[in-house]
Amino acid sequence: MAQKPSIPKGTRDFTPAEMARRNYIFDTIRSVFHLFGFQQIETPAMENLSTLMGKYGEEGDKLLFKTLNSGDFLRGVDMQTIEAGDCPKLAAQLCEKGLRYDLTVPFARFVVMHRNELTFPFKRFQIQPVWRADRPQKGRYREFYQCDADVIGSDSLINEIELLQLIDEVFKKLKVNISIKLNNRKVLAGIAELIGAPEKIVDITVAIDKIDKIGLDNVKAELKERGLSDEAIDKITPIITLDGSNEERLEKLEALLSESATGLKGVEELRFVMKGTNQLGLKSKLELDVSLARGLNYYTGTIIEVKAQDVEIGSITGGGRYDNLTGVFGLPGVSGVGISFGADRIYDVLNALNLYPADITGSAKVMFTNFGPAEAAKSLEIIKLLRQAGISAEIYPEASKMKKQMGRADTLGIPFVAIIGETELANGTVTLKDMTSGEQSELSPENLIAKLK
Amino acid sequence: MAQKPSIPKGTRDFTPAEMARRNYIFDTIRSVFHLFGFQQIETPAMENLSTLMGKYGEEGDKLLFKTLNSGDFLRGVDMQTIEAGDCPKLAAQLCEKGLRYDLTVPFARFVVMHRNELTFPFKRFQIQPVWRADRPQKGRYREFYQCDADVIGSDSLINEIELLQLIDEVFKKLKVNISIKLNNRKVLAGIAELIGAPEKIVDITVAIDKIDKIGLDNVKAELKERGLSDEAIDKITPIITLDGSNEERLEKLEALLSESATGLKGVEELRFVMKGTNQLGLKSKLELDVSLARGLNYYTGTIIEVKAQDVEIGSITGGGRYDNLTGVFGLPGVSGVGISFGADRIYDVLNALNLYPADITGSAKVMFTNFGPAEAAKSLEIIKLLRQAGISAEIYPEASKMKKQMGRADTLGIPFVAIIGETELANGTVTLKDMTSGEQSELSPENLIAKLK
Repeated sequence: MAQKPSIPKGTRDFTPAEMARRNYIFDTIRSVFHLFGFQQIETPAMENLSTLMGKYGEEGDKLLFKTLNSGDFLRGVDMQTIEAGDCPKLAAQLCEKGLRYDLTVPFARFVVMHRNELTFPFKRFQIQPVWRADRPQKGRYREFYQCDADVIGSDSLINEIELLQLIDEVFKKLKVNISIKLNNRKVLAGIAELIGAPEKIVDITVAIDKIDKIGLDNVKAELKERGLSDEAIDKITPIITLDGSNEERLEKLEALLSESATGLKGVEELRFVMKGTNQLGLKSKLELDVSLARGLNYYTGTIIEVKAQDVEIGSITGGGRYDNLTGVFGLPGVSGVGISFGADRIYDVLNALNLYPADITGSAKVMFTNFGPAEAAKSLEIIKLLRQAGISAEIYPEASKMKKQMGRADTLGIPFVAIIGETELANGTVTLKDMTSGEQSELSPENLIAKLK
Repeated sequence: MAQKPSIPKGTRDFTPAEMARRNYIFDTIRSVFHLFGFQQIETPAMENLSTLMGKYGEEGDKLLFKTLNSGDFLRGVDMQTIEAGDCPKLAAQLCEKGLRYDLTVPFARFVVMHRNELTFPFKRFQIQPVWRADRPQKGRYREFYQCDADVIGSDSLINEIELLQLIDEVFKKLKVNISIKLNNRKVLAGIAELIGAPEKIVDITVAIDKIDKIGLDNVKAELKERGLSDEAIDKITPIITLDGSNEERLEKLEALLSESATGLKGVEELRFVMKGTNQLGLKSKLELDVSLARGLNYYTGTIIEVKAQDVEIGSITGGGRYDNLTGVFGLPGVSGVGISFGADRIYDVLNALNLYPADITGSAKVMFTNFGPAEAAKSLEIIKLLRQAGISAEIYPEASKMKKQMGRADTLGIPFVAIIGETELANGTVTLKDMTSGEQSELSPENLIAKLK
């Protein structure tokens, strides 16, 4: 019985044309990771649920895809749990494994398990899919790729400078104009300290973040609503309205946070990173943004966020410094700094701006037509020479009508068609047709190779 | 509470050194796929179980990893099924999705869903992991990669010639000596026809396959045990003991199978493929082997199997021609021919013979030492120039003891260390140390780039 096939919602097939575009992005990111001395690792798609559960909050636990135990999975299941309809508890009895939700937790687990084989500072990158049982919507998938690079086991801010350059290089290569926003968790902590309310750090940051949208008065109203005193709001106002160049902002922040050792440390770190980065020259705009609060519960120092300048889309890359990657797995004190490229959003940006090079079709460079056995045999001989010269080549496998054969090259975006007919067979030549210009020329095999190389 | 982490049995982490080796294999295979004009696709890790179930036999169904439905997965579950302890039936109620078991069924599903976007003949390749809930053992994993290339929508035997060359090229590049065994399902059908017992095709082939191990007399005994008459065994004997060159074997087969139209067609196909391949020149040994019965239930023409010559290991690549890829999904008549590289076994072969190039460590080419802020700032400047020239470079992020810094380069296999100390800073130079020879030289930045390029 034939069935009409489909794929799970929120997942995607990638056709050759899509793969060519995605590979262009992944290959670019990978090549820059290598250029900066990062080394690749891979971890299994499935992790033990004991590794994953409790790491992403209660909501995250619900979004984990869990794998049903093999064989007699009912053994060890408690009937009372079933009767009570307690799905979370029952899931824990039915499933030992689940699909990874991000690359960070598997990386932490990897570091703990392999700590004796690794050389610290350890610079790792990882490009693999992750899975989340989120409600699918435009731009949000249940299977998507993450591209992470981290340096762990080093507190040096040189790593931040390196990562900012790495980001700059990736997007320069991809021809995407970006702005990089920079903040430091210690500055945010300093602000909260300044008004004697360290616990308000998130409230303050969320409110500050809205100033462009709702204006200063509304931000102030919101801060009041969130329980800040008028005095506190007055103290924060200069920070909310911080303007000028990055250096001017840093100077103002330094003055405003002069009472907070933590805040001043944050300013010092930002200054070091920005100065070092600017000295090396950055194509992208680098901007201090005290409202940037990405990953606030996780990051302890530098916070980085990247936005595309020519497309309305959320952050396309982000990262920061953390001081306890692996504590939850029993290895305290592993600090580091990392970034994550949002490959699927970058794909959307490149699609929107059509930034792909013309020659990334993923097709062969030349297709040989097929006029019959003798011509095909000769073509295969020459194709072998082309391939030895590193030129991707194929033959139309059947002696079909010429229109059909040429149609293939046209549809696949194969830039050249090579023809060996009766004349060429007699002359020991090949006629090469440039599919873009339509030009044709009869060439010796040697000249064909030279021309296509 | 700290937990001692582990990974699911039968799965693996890959460290940077392992990734460098695996990437070498995958990149080689991928580059040859491209050279031959194959185009990449990818499909999601999870497929609907309706796509996967029933495609791999009853045993295969049991080996599928199934994903527990999200949310209230007990809704729609029948209590009677639970009480009866009917795990397979219950699994179907608890799970809609599962992890792909191979790349062939997802490919068939892909072709049916995208048939209007594809250009036929469609030459696709796919390199992705698959998952099987098999009992793990040496060389058998629950997550492993398959590397498949198929040409569909073409009956031309030129495709076979192309695939044999492709195999030859991959293993030539990997420096693995192989022998390629070739058979044709139609020859096997002809043999069974010859003795008037088409249903015995598998029995006959299994017995023939053992001749090297158990000798002719024992094969004959086994054939008798499997229900063949003495007369039938006499007829088959010349085929079992087929020897001589490939052409001699083909001639003998042709004579022996002269009564079977199917058998003769098989001989003709083998002859065409072998002749065409030999004309182009193959590095590997190509051998007709009538006992080769790989995928007998699936293949309808050519059967291909590759063995490594210098390591005792099962088949490392295999494939064949089929005439109904997509019928089960409602699209009849899609024929094709394909091969699958067993990446994990190839990895084992390369490891056993240590066939990796020396320069595939996956590390940076040069590490700059760090003597302090001024030296580091200068180093970062030069590193930027090196990277612009495509040379992968890194800096030791801390001004640690020199022994520790050099130790990193040594352990990671970084071939060059660049040193900027007080002298070099004053001279505007870099001292480059070759970690293999121990040689040192003081160079200008330009000469450094030239030397490392």
